Amino acid sequence: MNKILERKIETFQSIDLQGYGNDFLLTWEKSDQHIEATLLLTEIFSMMHQQGISFKAFDAGLAVSVFRDNSTRTRFSYASAANALGLTVSDLDEKKSQIAHGETVRETANMISFLADAIGIRDDMYLGEGNRYMREVSHALDLGFSEGTLHQRPALINLQCDIDHPTQSMADMAKLRDYFGGVENLKGKKIAMTWAYSPSYGKPLSVPQGIIGLMTRAGMDVTLAHPEGYDLIPDVIDLASRQGKENGGGFRVVKSMEEAFADADVVYPKSWAPYYVMQRRTELLKSNDNEGLHTLEKECLINNKLHQNWECNDEKMALTKDGKALYMHCLPADISDVSCPHGEVSKEVFNRYRRHTYHEAGYKPFVIAAMIFLARLQDPQAMLKRISRQNNTRVMY
Amino acid sequence: MNKILERKIETFQSIDLQGYGNDFLLTWEKSDQHIEATLLLTEIFSMMHQQGISFKAFDAGLAVSVFRDNSTRTRFSYASAANALGLTVSDLDEKKSQIAHGETVRETANMISFLADAIGIRDDMYLGEGNRYMREVSHALDLGFSEGTLHQRPALINLQCDIDHPTQSMADMAKLRDYFGGVENLKGKKIAMTWAYSPSYGKPLSVPQGIIGLMTRAGMDVTLAHPEGYDLIPDVIDLASRQGKENGGGFRVVKSMEEAFADADVVYPKSWAPYYVMQRRTELLKSNDNEGLHTLEKECLINNKLHQNWECNDEKMALTKDGKALYMHCLPADISDVSCPHGEVSKEVFNRYRRHTYHEAGYKPFVIAAMIFLARLQDPQAMLKRISRQNNTRVMY
Amino acid sequence: MNKILERKIETFQSIDLQGYGNDFLLTWEKSDQHIEATLLLTEIFSMMHQQGISFKAFDAGLAVSVFRDNSTRTRFSYASAANALGLTVSDLDEKKSQIAHGETVRETANMISFLADAIGIRDDMYLGEGNRYMREVSHALDLGFSEGTLHQRPALINLQCDIDHPTQSMADMAKLRDYFGGVENLKGKKIAMTWAYSPSYGKPLSVPQGIIGLMTRAGMDVTLAHPEGYDLIPDVIDLASRQGKENGGGFRVVKSMEEAFADADVVYPKSWAPYYVMQRRTELLKSNDNEGLHTLEKECLINNKLHQNWECNDEKMALTKDGKALYMHCLPADISDVSCPHGEVSKEVFNRYRRHTYHEAGYKPFVIAAMIFLARLQDPQAMLKRISRQNNTRVMY
Repeated sequence: MNKILERKIETFQSIDLQGYGNDFLLTWEKSDQHIEATLLLTEIFSMMHQQGISFKAFDAGLAVSVFRDNSTRTRFSYASAANALGLTVSDLDEKKSQIAHGETVRETANMISFLADAIGIRDDMYLGEGNRYMREVSHALDLGFSEGTLHQRPALINLQCDIDHPTQSMADMAKLRDYFGGVENLKGKKIAMTWAYSPSYGKPLSVPQGIIGLMTRAGMDVTLAHPEGYDLIPDVIDLASRQGKENGGGFRVVKSMEEAFADADVVYPKSWAPYYVMQRRTELLKSNDNEGLHTLEKECLINNKLHQNWECNDEKMALTKDGKALYMHCLPADISDVSCPHGEVSKEVFNRYRRHTYHEAGYKPFVIAAMIFLARLQDPQAMLKRISRQNNTRVMY
Repeated sequence: MNKILERKIETFQSIDLQGYGNDFLLTWEKSDQHIEATLLLTEIFSMMHQQGISFKAFDAGLAVSVFRDNSTRTRFSYASAANALGLTVSDLDEKKSQIAHGETVRETANMISFLADAIGIRDDMYLGEGNRYMREVSHALDLGFSEGTLHQRPALINLQCDIDHPTQSMADMAKLRDYFGGVENLKGKKIAMTWAYSPSYGKPLSVPQGIIGLMTRAGMDVTLAHPEGYDLIPDVIDLASRQGKENGGGFRVVKSMEEAFADADVVYPKSWAPYYVMQRRTELLKSNDNEGLHTLEKECLINNKLHQNWECNDEKMALTKDGKALYMHCLPADISDVSCPHGEVSKEVFNRYRRHTYHEAGYKPFVIAAMIFLARLQDPQAMLKRISRQNNTRVMY
Repeated sequence: MNKILERKIETFQSIDLQGYGNDFLLTWEKSDQHIEATLLLTEIFSMMHQQGISFKAFDAGLAVSVFRDNSTRTRFSYASAANALGLTVSDLDEKKSQIAHGETVRETANMISFLADAIGIRDDMYLGEGNRYMREVSHALDLGFSEGTLHQRPALINLQCDIDHPTQSMADMAKLRDYFGGVENLKGKKIAMTWAYSPSYGKPLSVPQGIIGLMTRAGMDVTLAHPEGYDLIPDVIDLASRQGKENGGGFRVVKSMEEAFADADVVYPKSWAPYYVMQRRTELLKSNDNEGLHTLEKECLINNKLHQNWECNDEKMALTKDGKALYMHCLPADISDVSCPHGEVSKEVFNRYRRHTYHEAGYKPFVIAAMIFLARLQDPQAMLKRISRQNNTRVMY
């Protein structure tokens, strides 16, 4: 174990973890201390893994996953996190996404949790529903635990909902800390969270919302840009504005990619669906109106096409700070001439930053592991001390 | 580890486990001692889990699952049991339920078992087939082990067949022991296993058969009630009658829910398909007669509707002992005004007993773990002693 | 641990493992020493498992699987190997087989590998594609590791491609060594790798190619037999010819089963699709020409039927050495009068050798474990020494 890692473990001991809670649903429900603890532990776990040190904390236990939308990357991140902690993934396959309420949710939440230490949920398809569903599960778990049905209260992790995508935004933050050499260096840095053109439709709003909701807290100067009609949830905009004022950075909304890119230290160009489309879509999905959905998709794609110039390319990158802003993306990106004729980013820009985007993604397993570790263990600091003292290698030499 | 748990572990040492066998297919194939050992170990594992003690017995090994019918709860129970013992679930996905015989079964049974310690099978769709299939697998495993193809003989666990549902009935029994404060208190207690209305069709007979087949052994006074035509397999009725006479309790069949509920200590109202329907259904499924199946379903649902008054509600509960019988269900229940307009149980009754039904379900993972532990280990008593002496915590502090 | 096992572990220490590499894609890319090390370790792991000794090498880590074709046996073999080594399978479910290139492959390969120690791929449907895809993944992993995206370079294992099926041919070789009492006894032994009739179409060429590519190296006298048009990939034929000359055995191609069987010590009758059919099939699949595929299938089945006499039966077995050649098959075999009216092998012959075919299949989990162990560990010899010194039992007495 090297010195840097040892020092980080030392620092971790001094953070006030009281009240961390069982769930990680929205970053803005967490205190600064808790965000800091999660990020620091993410870095610690990543370094331990790199140095071949095991951070297994459980001898047995299930990590349940519920994917109400397709996922490969998050699935593997969750599986990796669970595995590293000593938990085994058990997937609840609901066959198809459904809006269930009441007894069904309460019962299922308990039935899958008898020996579970974590539940990870992705539910990002329905505006107004995903996060609500997670809270219903959360209450069911509280009830089950208080009634003695469950011997332990599993940690509930939001793997992307309609409002936030905390495992993504926290991985992004970890990348930024690493890139700029420390959290203190993020203060005042300009980040452009901008819409970008994509020949697809219905992408969730949770990534841009997660970014503006988290980066304004770090004191970054955040600019959101999107074409008219591509608004985000008003509450999150309000939150970002408030945080922008409080934390010495700032928050504003502009109407062009160029304006947002001007002098930016970081750019995050990424497509999402218009707010009103997501609302109509939720209604149509609820009423199983397939024809309506089809019409809406067509409309939306035609509308998207009007904004094909929202592409992150060399010309636009030249507007950024010294022409060298960090390009970020949650992946997979729609790359022009690679995955589609016109996309979110040009081949040249993507290739130049590809390594960075991969590195960014690489934090996610460790973010999830940190969230479970902090939510589930009674004394995470004592546990980390024990783990670092034991210094077990992952390969069992 | 508390005193009660220590005493239970002590008691477990004195049970005669000889001849427990490799499989758990029907409760009535097991001796009283073996049933007692399984139940006691279920309680021990449940208490160990509650007290945070690991009962891992395997350093590695697969627990194969074969689900020939949909399942969420049993899937998670099996995964939980495997995980707690140190085994990893590997699911044989046959894509669709099929009646296979001969070389295919023998070969597959061996090919999936080279490193397997347990195989759990659910096959409850075809009357006369599920249990038969399990025995074919069992013989194939015996052969494979005797020929040296397999280095170990995996334990075969019936996760529900056409005849019995032993992991359910054993969990039910564990709940009853807990509720009445000991197995000796079950003697003479009245239990009403009754049919109930449900707006669905084709539910297996294995739950009611499992209940009358097991509870008559515990000396309970068992009443089975169902509308005309909703008979169970004659052999199981004969078995229950015989056991009812031998064990000081009793067994009778009546024709109304009210009659069964009168003065009952426990009620178990649950829908199932008529015997003749399950027989015709098996034939139609074998011949892939989809139209026939559709017609049969319609007929059956119309027939079911004639018995909509078979609902467990406050009025009927008032007939039970002091109006306070324990309501049981294997879940999910069809709850009137919650999951459907008319169902097996009223909302009021279900809500009053919800906590009990969840608690009942919570035993299942530990029942399965106990079955595998007893079937698979050469000396389960020595192993449990070692485990309790080591007193390893599940969270690795 | 018995003496034979101890001696094998001793022998393993003396093999030169330098340059084993990260991947196992084709047996003929491996040196004789590396093939020998893999086979010896296969035998060692099999014996350890039989004697109840754990050979877990990892405290945590994922073993990713990518199945671009259906598989039950290889799936379970891979899961078993992973589990025995301490790794957990995480399956990449691509929904449907697809020919993906470029950024997608590179990105996915990295995204699933952050905490992976092994990746097993089956991709055998497209001639000219499967192995190519594996090499693309391999390069992506090299890049990811060199760039620091990946903390470790996962071992890449070919679980069957269009060219070779090394986990199968190595299991076959292990069986032959056991059957003939040592590798030295394989020299000069006659093996007939022959086409056989099957009422199906489109079976890959990788099994026969794997056999002629590996057995000619062991100094066996290899005869390939098939009807006209059922050629294998020319490169592999050339390789077998060259190796046949170099290693003191031999290689020839004949046009009848009878000729190949004459005086053979081992026969391996197995169906495969004609080379030209696989080529046309690949093109049709690429262009999604379903009608073309259907027509090709019909044509091919009609053509197959002309060779229904290519069945391994008692009459043909009588031609072999003393009428007692060892019958081999990768399973499942098409058995006449069992799985189909006319198949690859008669019921009588299959039944007589069934036990041997099961035993042959039983090596596969240990072959895969050996491949991962050798590719992934820095010093496999030291690790095996540690494991044997610790002598941990798999059941944790």
